[in-house]
Amino acid sequence: MTLSKQEMPNQNYLFETEQALHYDIKEQVNQLFASSTQATFLEEHIDGITHKFSQDFLTTLDANTNIDLDSLLGKFCESQIPVKPANVESYLKYLGNNVVAHSIHTSSPQFIGHMTSALPCFVRPIAKLMTAMNQNAVKIETAKALSFCEREALAMLHRLIYNLDDNFYAQHIQNNLSTLGILVSGGTVANITAVWCARNASLGPKDEFLGVEKEGLAAALDFYGYKGAAIIGSELMHFSFDKAADLMGIGTHRLIRVPTECNNRVNIQALRQAVAECRAQNLLIIAIVGVAGTTDSGGVDSLAEIAEIAQEANVHFHVDAAWGGPLIFSEQHRHKLAGMERADSVTIDGHKQLYLPIGIGLVFFRDPHIAKAIEKQASYTMRKGSFDLGKRALEGSRPGMALFLHAGLNLIGLKGYEFLIDEGIRKTQYMADRICTMPEFELLAEPDTNLLLYRYIPGQLRELAVKKQLTEIDNQLIDQFNERLQKVQRQIGRTFISRTTKTTTKFGKEVPIIALRAVIANPLTTEEDIDAVLNDQIQIASEIAISDFLKASGKL
Amino acid sequence: MTLSKQEMPNQNYLFETEQALHYDIKEQVNQLFASSTQATFLEEHIDGITHKFSQDFLTTLDANTNIDLDSLLGKFCESQIPVKPANVESYLKYLGNNVVAHSIHTSSPQFIGHMTSALPCFVRPIAKLMTAMNQNAVKIETAKALSFCEREALAMLHRLIYNLDDNFYAQHIQNNLSTLGILVSGGTVANITAVWCARNASLGPKDEFLGVEKEGLAAALDFYGYKGAAIIGSELMHFSFDKAADLMGIGTHRLIRVPTECNNRVNIQALRQAVAECRAQNLLIIAIVGVAGTTDSGGVDSLAEIAEIAQEANVHFHVDAAWGGPLIFSEQHRHKLAGMERADSVTIDGHKQLYLPIGIGLVFFRDPHIAKAIEKQASYTMRKGSFDLGKRALEGSRPGMALFLHAGLNLIGLKGYEFLIDEGIRKTQYMADRICTMPEFELLAEPDTNLLLYRYIPGQLRELAVKKQLTEIDNQLIDQFNERLQKVQRQIGRTFISRTTKTTTKFGKEVPIIALRAVIANPLTTEEDIDAVLNDQIQIASEIAISDFLKASGKL
Repeated sequence: MTLSKQEMPNQNYLFETEQALHYDIKEQVNQLFASSTQATFLEEHIDGITHKFSQDFLTTLDANTNIDLDSLLGKFCESQIPVKPANVESYLKYLGNNVVAHSIHTSSPQFIGHMTSALPCFVRPIAKLMTAMNQNAVKIETAKALSFCEREALAMLHRLIYNLDDNFYAQHIQNNLSTLGILVSGGTVANITAVWCARNASLGPKDEFLGVEKEGLAAALDFYGYKGAAIIGSELMHFSFDKAADLMGIGTHRLIRVPTECNNRVNIQALRQAVAECRAQNLLIIAIVGVAGTTDSGGVDSLAEIAEIAQEANVHFHVDAAWGGPLIFSEQHRHKLAGMERADSVTIDGHKQLYLPIGIGLVFFRDPHIAKAIEKQASYTMRKGSFDLGKRALEGSRPGMALFLHAGLNLIGLKGYEFLIDEGIRKTQYMADRICTMPEFELLAEPDTNLLLYRYIPGQLRELAVKKQLTEIDNQLIDQFNERLQKVQRQIGRTFISRTTKTTTKFGKEVPIIALRAVIANPLTTEEDIDAVLNDQIQIASEIAISDFLKASGKL
Repeated sequence: MTLSKQEMPNQNYLFETEQALHYDIKEQVNQLFASSTQATFLEEHIDGITHKFSQDFLTTLDANTNIDLDSLLGKFCESQIPVKPANVESYLKYLGNNVVAHSIHTSSPQFIGHMTSALPCFVRPIAKLMTAMNQNAVKIETAKALSFCEREALAMLHRLIYNLDDNFYAQHIQNNLSTLGILVSGGTVANITAVWCARNASLGPKDEFLGVEKEGLAAALDFYGYKGAAIIGSELMHFSFDKAADLMGIGTHRLIRVPTECNNRVNIQALRQAVAECRAQNLLIIAIVGVAGTTDSGGVDSLAEIAEIAQEANVHFHVDAAWGGPLIFSEQHRHKLAGMERADSVTIDGHKQLYLPIGIGLVFFRDPHIAKAIEKQASYTMRKGSFDLGKRALEGSRPGMALFLHAGLNLIGLKGYEFLIDEGIRKTQYMADRICTMPEFELLAEPDTNLLLYRYIPGQLRELAVKKQLTEIDNQLIDQFNERLQKVQRQIGRTFISRTTKTTTKFGKEVPIIALRAVIANPLTTEEDIDAVLNDQIQIASEIAISDFLKASGKL
């Protein structure tokens, strides 16, 4: 796509040529920007081409093409920006052939290995509208109505979580001193923001001390008489907490990962003990984290019990419900989240089970004033007392993603989200039941929500597996086989399942097991699709087995 | 839009009604998701409506409507999520009337007060395509081609900044151990990421010490024998560095803001002294920050001199070129950035002078391995040795914004960006010249790039202003007048200029001056638009003056 060095304009060009080039460039750039009929025509022309890309992309069943990574990366090795604007049509053709063609069909009903899904059809037009409006949510002067619209959407979810009364919301929903929630780019920033608020609130200004914000962590721990700080949660906490502990100067060794039971829930007794040990070691516990939907298996901690411990210890209770939060929409399943309403802060991802595009994380606060602990100002913007949403946020400039959230809550509604959640869990149970009836597979745990861990058992080991007589070496062989199976399946690209390594299976902590990991959230995924994915794995496994046999017998 | 509590479904409903509701919801949700002809029809219907919104929005000249904030926020006070999916047409009508109508026309040629602009027409179709593809750039399994495409676009800008040789790029562009840059949500996360890398690299593992990442900041400073840590830069550093200093446990008091001269560039002598003082106080200097385009005035520090100081002190040199970085495209202006190529890290915003939608920040590293200092892994993803871009990043899941960047670099090209930069600076000079000829205004500083600071001088003070005989009280009156002028102008909404408070004017540090702040980046802004904005201010000022006179004389 780009010009080689030899084609770069030469400084010795004749004056006329330079002039002509300049005029040419000016014309081309103006054409891209102008709000004239000509520009509208160009935009509609581009829209026609990219619309076709989108439609083809959205209707392709395969998970991805079978191009290997080495060939693919070879297509993206140009390090020079082209001198002149590329021809629009050739660039789009290039984009279609090289990028769109080899992207992952995250919305395919048979791509059931990551926390992706088909999205409701309104998100695509809204994406275009959002980009046309190009509001910057950092301040009211660049996001007037959107700032209030965002606050309304956040209040709606806040109410769903905390269920406080009409007066509370009347008082806080559009009060510029209150922060019911913050819209961020994803769950990681949401979790970091929550821990940041918790840290600053617990090491705030006191007497002559100006607080951790101004004086730093070492001085704050010193002033308050702590030997260090810690965050406590399940060993299955998302790795964003490692980032938080590192970034905030706490240190990842002080991210205390408490063992889980084989249902993937944190061991409450061990959690209580971890709290006691921190106290004994004179460590400030910045937050206790409950997980509502672990990334690797969808497990939900016993939030009510954790809330109890946090309350007794007078410690900030954060719930990472990035994945599982939307269970709250379901009358049938919301009991699994009991205790979340006692959290000081809650993370929910908009781009997971709220079925919105990637780039929407949400953090909610029980206390509408806790986020004051991270407030910043600047004279050119973010003025005190203003409605500028960027005053209390890790991020600065950010897009109007609230449009998606507001549209989702209204166009899908409580009952629509309930239906989506219930269906995902129902189909996951279907898959679990299917796996139990198939000799080729072993279910590794009953699913808590809509993530499923299982593995393939090669033929010669099935009897031992059924009799529960697998040795450690057998398990290693099975692990190797499953890793290969997942990689080959991904490479072929017809269907997709992800994999993870589990230490909380029935085999105990000492035997890490490689698990196949299904995530069933896509409303387009049917029982037939689930069967097709499993059958695809059986077929691939048999091909691997035959190829191994031929290799072993010297015939290949 | 939402249903009241009384309309929420009652648990005592008859069984048949519940069933009917469930069926109804199922139909509606499936219609939103299905990849059928019916769904395509619905999507196209929505697209037709939102397309009309976009076109109207993009062709409106006014900066915004004159609705006051109190009336506007009153429209967004619903805290209950509607029970059933809203009717698509009514919702879109609501959205158009309440959100789109009262959003800010950031692309208007007469909205020249913030770092916004009209965008090239290809970004809107690409936004839709990006959302249709919904890749998650965190890992290769959900962003196959896009991961490589992103790396290519980052390498192109890296080369523009650092201008290293072909071999270097051949070695690193698609090497999964190398990180030439990271695409983030904005300049704030870019700056935080740079400081994070610098901190972790300078307090890394040594002997028995496992490094700041694992052991925390207090232990690291202790091990390395420092009394504290600091970041040094100009007093005009962006407030994202306050966030970085707070978040990372350094403390904002240790964010050392060195005075600037009246050209808004950091005083080099004072900077040198700050470094010496940190040394004397036994503080670790994590980074020295050079600013290339201050947020309030567009000033560019003497980067080469700062590079020299950083090199002598053996300290990480970061350049915040969020705004000014793209000056590098301009043969005429890139000399202002001389020294940036010596930076260890550089921030550039895609959504500022790369003319891409909000949500694109970029950080580049001279050393392709420095970002290893922040690397994290997780067993379910982010595997060591993989191409997962999320291994080295503050954020986790994030959208395929690289599509915009890649398209911008190719479809605008080196010369296209040069034209845009040159034009912005040329028109800013035009505005400065106009202001100098108009008695109503006073230019507060010659512009370095394309930001302009000036103020309105009320009639009765003009003579004193010209004679440079304004007293402190006069300046206070002028300040009050300009603050009011800016607020009234914003409220009326025909045109827009922002405001800031400056302490680096000719009046000296002790007299903070309220300045009107113009940002000229929009290619649609013509000389006539600039005249129109200034004339609008003159008209508003005269109306304010008349109203004040009438009030004072008791006639109002």
